[in-house]
Amino acid sequence: MYVHGYHPRESERLGDQAGTLVELLHSDTAYPGGSVVLEAGCGVGAQTVTLARQSPDAHFVSVDLSAESLEEAGRAIDRTGITNVTLRQEDIFALPFDRESFDHVFVCFVLEHLTRPAEALGILRGLLRPGGTITVIEGDHGSAYFHPDSPAAHAAIRCQVELQRRAGGDALIGRQVYPLMVDAGFDAVRVSPRMVYVDASRPHLVDGFTRRTFTAMIEGVRDTAIAAEIVEPALFDAGVRDLHRTTEADGVFCYTFFKGVGTRRRV
Amino acid sequence: MYVHGYHPRESERLGDQAGTLVELLHSDTAYPGGSVVLEAGCGVGAQTVTLARQSPDAHFVSVDLSAESLEEAGRAIDRTGITNVTLRQEDIFALPFDRESFDHVFVCFVLEHLTRPAEALGILRGLLRPGGTITVIEGDHGSAYFHPDSPAAHAAIRCQVELQRRAGGDALIGRQVYPLMVDAGFDAVRVSPRMVYVDASRPHLVDGFTRRTFTAMIEGVRDTAIAAEIVEPALFDAGVRDLHRTTEADGVFCYTFFKGVGTRRRV
Repeated sequence: MYVHGYHPRESERLGDQAGTLVELLHSDTAYPGGSVVLEAGCGVGAQTVTLARQSPDAHFVSVDLSAESLEEAGRAIDRTGITNVTLRQEDIFALPFDRESFDHVFVCFVLEHLTRPAEALGILRGLLRPGGTITVIEGDHGSAYFHPDSPAAHAAIRCQVELQRRAGGDALIGRQVYPLMVDAGFDAVRVSPRMVYVDASRPHLVDGFTRRTFTAMIEGVRDTAIAAEIVEPALFDAGVRDLHRTTEADGVFCYTFFKGVGTRRRV
Repeated sequence: MYVHGYHPRESERLGDQAGTLVELLHSDTAYPGGSVVLEAGCGVGAQTVTLARQSPDAHFVSVDLSAESLEEAGRAIDRTGITNVTLRQEDIFALPFDRESFDHVFVCFVLEHLTRPAEALGILRGLLRPGGTITVIEGDHGSAYFHPDSPAAHAAIRCQVELQRRAGGDALIGRQVYPLMVDAGFDAVRVSPRMVYVDASRPHLVDGFTRRTFTAMIEGVRDTAIAAEIVEPALFDAGVRDLHRTTEADGVFCYTFFKGVGTRRRV
């Protein structure tokens, strides 16, 4: 279900991504001391470390389906000396926690991979105590545009979207965060877009985002997309070249993440 | 060259647009007392009134090619009692001003209509005193995406892009503001995207932006696009319906403007 794969280079990419985007995505997320927070789908811990550092007096229960990812998350947590995280291997659709047992829930880059994201949000809502919040962060590959524009680059991006769709996910889910959260019964839902705008005056983002996060992710699906006959190799390779072209001095790259916060209403 | 047209309803739309977007686009633009500012391409004065109000002790010379637009701009200015604006009918490619005669230059929703935007920026740079700034604001129709997604809606939007292209302009120019300004020789160019994110929790934007600004603009090119055989009427009408569909309770609409500020370096 997880089309990004589990390779070491992929973990590195997710680490790069988290590093570059921490401020943009997470700087306004902090939980009060004593809160118990469920991080549903922590993967290799790319967000976990940031979360736990920003809320040192909250406790995080970070779960993921993949034992391999959790092992890596454990190593990341050990390296940083953080002590307020418990890692557990769990399926988001079969979480063994009591109803209303968490003060807050945090879900980042997870719904995009799920066949039934609305159902997952409903389950998470049930685990939240009345008055607690959920935070949902997702990207949206349809938000990627750039200069110079390139049909080949858009075709290469559509390979990732199509592979994610075939795996049951939705790479265009960012724009749907608001209706998904409202449908799941959350109240006071507020979504804010977090746009990554990259031009040559922001060299850190040129390298950290355009090149090593977004383009690396697209490059990563090359063989799978070609094997699945979604694209001709020449077109895909031209698309990747054109994505790299946007990192030159006159290039521009845009991408948007969506962050939603909602509440489970007090009854 | 100006595909948006000059009808009264169009002026009303531009007025609506300016009202909804004033804070997002212009709140960080203010000029010191005594500055003389050239507004190149003021149109019907949609931005002029905001600019002049926000910098009451600066003086604005607002020029446009269209006598009809200037007349309307004059009425808008008279209605508001603003006295720090001089309107003049001029061609941006043949401005009769002395070199280095302006402290600042302001250009909003103009480059998109020009065949030679880089040349226009070069001319404007020559009119700027060393140390003065230029502010450039442009939209980008390739930044429009929405939920529910709709190929027909994208086809309708592409009609506007294609008509603008045939008229010599570029409706995808927002993402190019940075390279255009750098190419024209401006220094310390900084571009910031201004994303309009609309969901049902923001009813003012649903009506003021999605419905009455963006969708109204697309609807406005219907007959021209059909006459030019760019689109089948049924597809266009389905696209407009689908744009309206994004204004329902579960709909989301995204669009981004780009604002660049650059300096003419002191020699």
